[in-house]
Amino acid sequence: MASQKSDTAMSPKITGELLRQLRQAMRNCKYFSEPIQAYIIPSGDAHQSEYIAPCDCRREFICGFNGSAGTAIVTEQHAAMWTDGRYFLQASQQMDNNWTLMKMGLKETPSQEDWLISVLPENSKVGVDPWIIAADQWKNMSKALISAGHSLVAVQDNLIDAVWTDRPERPSTQLRTLGLEYTGMSWQDKIVTLRAKMTERKISWFVATALDEIAWLFNLRGADIEYNPVFFAYTIVGMNTIRLFVDLKRLADPALRDHLQLGSPSKPELSIQTFPYESVYTELQAICAALGPKDKVWICDKASCALTQVIPKAHRTPIPYTPLCLSKAVKNATEIQGMKMAHIKDAVALCELFAWLEKEIPKGNVTEISAADKAEELRSQQKDFVGLSFPTISSVGPNGAIIHYRPLPETNRTLTMNEVYLIDSGAQYVDGTTDVTRTMHFGTPSAFEKECFTYVLKGHIAVSAAIFPNGTKGHLLDSFARAALWESGLDYLHGTGHGVGCFLNVHEGPCGISYKTFADEPLEAGMIVSDEPGYYEDGSFGIRLENVVLVVPAKPKYNYRNRGSLTFDPLTLVPIQIKMMNTELLTQKERDWVNEYHRKCREVIGAELERQGRKEALEWLIRETQPIV
Amino acid sequence: MASQKSDTAMSPKITGELLRQLRQAMRNCKYFSEPIQAYIIPSGDAHQSEYIAPCDCRREFICGFNGSAGTAIVTEQHAAMWTDGRYFLQASQQMDNNWTLMKMGLKETPSQEDWLISVLPENSKVGVDPWIIAADQWKNMSKALISAGHSLVAVQDNLIDAVWTDRPERPSTQLRTLGLEYTGMSWQDKIVTLRAKMTERKISWFVATALDEIAWLFNLRGADIEYNPVFFAYTIVGMNTIRLFVDLKRLADPALRDHLQLGSPSKPELSIQTFPYESVYTELQAICAALGPKDKVWICDKASCALTQVIPKAHRTPIPYTPLCLSKAVKNATEIQGMKMAHIKDAVALCELFAWLEKEIPKGNVTEISAADKAEELRSQQKDFVGLSFPTISSVGPNGAIIHYRPLPETNRTLTMNEVYLIDSGAQYVDGTTDVTRTMHFGTPSAFEKECFTYVLKGHIAVSAAIFPNGTKGHLLDSFARAALWESGLDYLHGTGHGVGCFLNVHEGPCGISYKTFADEPLEAGMIVSDEPGYYEDGSFGIRLENVVLVVPAKPKYNYRNRGSLTFDPLTLVPIQIKMMNTELLTQKERDWVNEYHRKCREVIGAELERQGRKEALEWLIRETQPIV
Repeated sequence: MASQKSDTAMSPKITGELLRQLRQAMRNCKYFSEPIQAYIIPSGDAHQSEYIAPCDCRREFICGFNGSAGTAIVTEQHAAMWTDGRYFLQASQQMDNNWTLMKMGLKETPSQEDWLISVLPENSKVGVDPWIIAADQWKNMSKALISAGHSLVAVQDNLIDAVWTDRPERPSTQLRTLGLEYTGMSWQDKIVTLRAKMTERKISWFVATALDEIAWLFNLRGADIEYNPVFFAYTIVGMNTIRLFVDLKRLADPALRDHLQLGSPSKPELSIQTFPYESVYTELQAICAALGPKDKVWICDKASCALTQVIPKAHRTPIPYTPLCLSKAVKNATEIQGMKMAHIKDAVALCELFAWLEKEIPKGNVTEISAADKAEELRSQQKDFVGLSFPTISSVGPNGAIIHYRPLPETNRTLTMNEVYLIDSGAQYVDGTTDVTRTMHFGTPSAFEKECFTYVLKGHIAVSAAIFPNGTKGHLLDSFARAALWESGLDYLHGTGHGVGCFLNVHEGPCGISYKTFADEPLEAGMIVSDEPGYYEDGSFGIRLENVVLVVPAKPKYNYRNRGSLTFDPLTLVPIQIKMMNTELLTQKERDWVNEYHRKCREVIGAELERQGRKEALEWLIRETQPIV
Repeated sequence: MASQKSDTAMSPKITGELLRQLRQAMRNCKYFSEPIQAYIIPSGDAHQSEYIAPCDCRREFICGFNGSAGTAIVTEQHAAMWTDGRYFLQASQQMDNNWTLMKMGLKETPSQEDWLISVLPENSKVGVDPWIIAADQWKNMSKALISAGHSLVAVQDNLIDAVWTDRPERPSTQLRTLGLEYTGMSWQDKIVTLRAKMTERKISWFVATALDEIAWLFNLRGADIEYNPVFFAYTIVGMNTIRLFVDLKRLADPALRDHLQLGSPSKPELSIQTFPYESVYTELQAICAALGPKDKVWICDKASCALTQVIPKAHRTPIPYTPLCLSKAVKNATEIQGMKMAHIKDAVALCELFAWLEKEIPKGNVTEISAADKAEELRSQQKDFVGLSFPTISSVGPNGAIIHYRPLPETNRTLTMNEVYLIDSGAQYVDGTTDVTRTMHFGTPSAFEKECFTYVLKGHIAVSAAIFPNGTKGHLLDSFARAALWESGLDYLHGTGHGVGCFLNVHEGPCGISYKTFADEPLEAGMIVSDEPGYYEDGSFGIRLENVVLVVPAKPKYNYRNRGSLTFDPLTLVPIQIKMMNTELLTQKERDWVNEYHRKCREVIGAELERQGRKEALEWLIRETQPIV
């Protein structure tokens, strides 16, 4: 929830004693044959999750900094923490002076490798928990250290856990089964599809480590990690066996056992063998010991170094994303229908919020935090609401220019008639996941604010209305979102869109829309991504316009080489504030797009507001969707 | 010249006896300790040149296929040649049935590695000349073979040369010195700049192998390779020494000796030591034997495997493109001025050509070949003309849809009033290199031809008029060129632009405009690229519109984060045929762009036509540059 963590104090954590204990552990041969001279503490968990559970917040524990990205390294003499521009201020406030803040992206800041090489005595050993470093990161770090005469060492016992006396338990929340009415495909059929891909590529085994892929595969959801309806598990799929590694206590529920057909599989090759979560390592070892000379094992190159290295190199086939990741990204008809329903409910809540804000702001009592809380309250009234899909970004005026802002009591501003308000929020419903950003002014926006808003809108439309060939990668669309801003010398320093899960993680791969071309799979019909250009005027205001859009077939006049064409259909149906537009800067095509979009909002969301009897929001919707000329 | 090679017969080369001799050489232990089971014949030379000299046409010699891209592999039992879609027809006509054509890009075609693995007996040795395989290609091929139990072996003596009895001599044409009036920077200053970059990156030695980089560095030009004013050489630059490897006979000319200050350097560290071309290997070995423990050597990862492997791995710093490549890409004021002058002269020749075609086509005597010859004749009348910059693509009707078409007697079509004519041509002048494509109709184009032409024009303008932030990579602009085509379901299957040298290669790195993101350096002011979207209707017509454009600073309204903005200024000033446009499909902005472009053509080229007294072409220019409304 947006406001729950806002009581986190911004005073630095006192870390002197903790560091003393950690350094003692680094010298303690209980953990390894020889002492290590440095220890790396990445921010991830063993599944390389974007959001992590409290028991995995080891980097926060050791240094105090609780942002989403950062790596700490402790040597005998030094303690340093690398994070990016979003977090420089926060990190400097949360860490005491035992720590050096390494500002990533600044020219003078050394990389972790270069820094280690500069401070370590000759022939040093650098330790890391192989479970929380990805295989590809291990490879790069190891190479750099070896080239300087050092070595990277896998420390099986996590040294932070060794000094973290009150470390929380790993969550083991109740599992929820999803029927065909939500998933459109049984887990058995998903296994069959996966095995067909394995056969095609001559792969004998597949190791799944990403939590959202496992949840998707088995049509199960959990609540182990805030905002992400996933549960801690691993899965290994062979051509005749399915092994699921999970806290076995979770499997007691008869409905769940029935869903997984535990003990009574329809076919032997669809029988799930269950194992304790921790036994994945030894089971994978056993599987690998029995591999034939031609057997190949698929594992994502972002999986943990620990599991990856269990598989002998000759049998290992690392892939940048797994077949589950790609299958999950292409939503089936049932999932698309669910996502549409979720977005209708979400739009109802947002229309209510904006109608309420319009009424309440003039009274001077609404703050960033209370607006976020109100949004959550309104969403929670909708059917099958589960929780938020990420911490709400509710920001006024200058706070809007902080791209990953999250209101805290000490930064909390009051919404007024004089400043731009940006709210980026979303929810988990059993039928789908939402993520929407609107930027509004409740008084009279300045000409410059309107100008910037209009460029952002032009970019949003350029992507949303683009027609492009089947097989186009998302990065080829990124510049469409920027062209209008660029023409006036403006830009925004983030990508334009990310994949969105269906009652799963709000950020998912393997497709997106970004100038970064890394691991970018071609777009295809059924994929769902966000379209969210922005503009941020430091110290003044922030603008972002975000819809979740569905990739759909387009039918242009011609069909070159029978390739077929694609375009986007907005799932988000929330009015875009006309007051913020300088409509003279819009082309006729753009004005038509806005009018058609608002017509659809009025038709679809209007009907639902009517049905739910939410009169004020309906009036607001009607007012905000008048055609522009 | 466009027509010179057109007498190449399309009957297959008889290769039975040659293959027998080659296979004998593969078993002959004169060349290596053990026989090899396969021999790879790439198409390049020892400098990985795009165009090659006759003595380096080894792949053509062994199989008969003379296209620009292709790799032959010969085993005891098989002979196979891989090439891409441009050349399927030509290759199948030029090769006899000893050869299997491997059609790259088709799903069923195996890669060279996979094919080798499928046909070779266990534990085979695959040979290749390490001078004509690039280091990065060697690495990939070697890895694949090792993983299947085979090995890749460097065969120092080229086995094709061993059986090629009448192999031509390596060219050693006269060298031309370029003064400051053409280069804007002495070679001494270029060396100083290079060394400054080496110091910055702590590099002790730099090995230059690309012919255009060496020509640029020393302000020299040759004529060793058709269309490319380069000469065979290597260079090794240290912090105090400069070694030039070249046929020493070429250095007899006193003016040349003076230019290079041979024997009388201004400063000792600017003294050039000259060595025979062939001695680069042993000299580099000697340099490497004397390296200190911290010495690093820069070499491009596309340099030959032979030279790359001389440098011990610990001292080798491979780079995707060299500092010379980047320096050369950013033209200085003198080079820009030269490029502008070259493009004015080139436009004069083309205006004359088009005026002549308009008059001659109705008589029915103009063919693709005679039009190309006329273009060359007219260009050759211009000051400081050296030769063509690539073989002229002169194509009528369906031939226009063959992207890399080159007219041959057996394909030669007559220009008529009924078909679209596409001419892509360019020249080398001492002051600059040109490359321009125009598509015209001398009768009445169909509505569909006009529609497609107009989409291509819209794409051309979208790139040419784009404003984008400093530091933007060219691939981010590629989709601008396609958006109008995509909207109608159309596309073209090639990149949008390439770097252009200044009296150097018409294709150069490290920047360009393409959906391929490989080795794409950010655009900066002074770079020169082409802007050439197209549309090809198989069996019917081809459309391409190409200008060479200069990257220049733009001054939009705002300047976000002081990054500065860039745009393009067309150097090519040749009218774009208005008759081919459906002006109703153009926006007002696009019409303004066309009118402003034509105004500039009329002003600049008109003045030069006037000065040269070329009346008919001037009249044509005036007619073709009337404003559209």
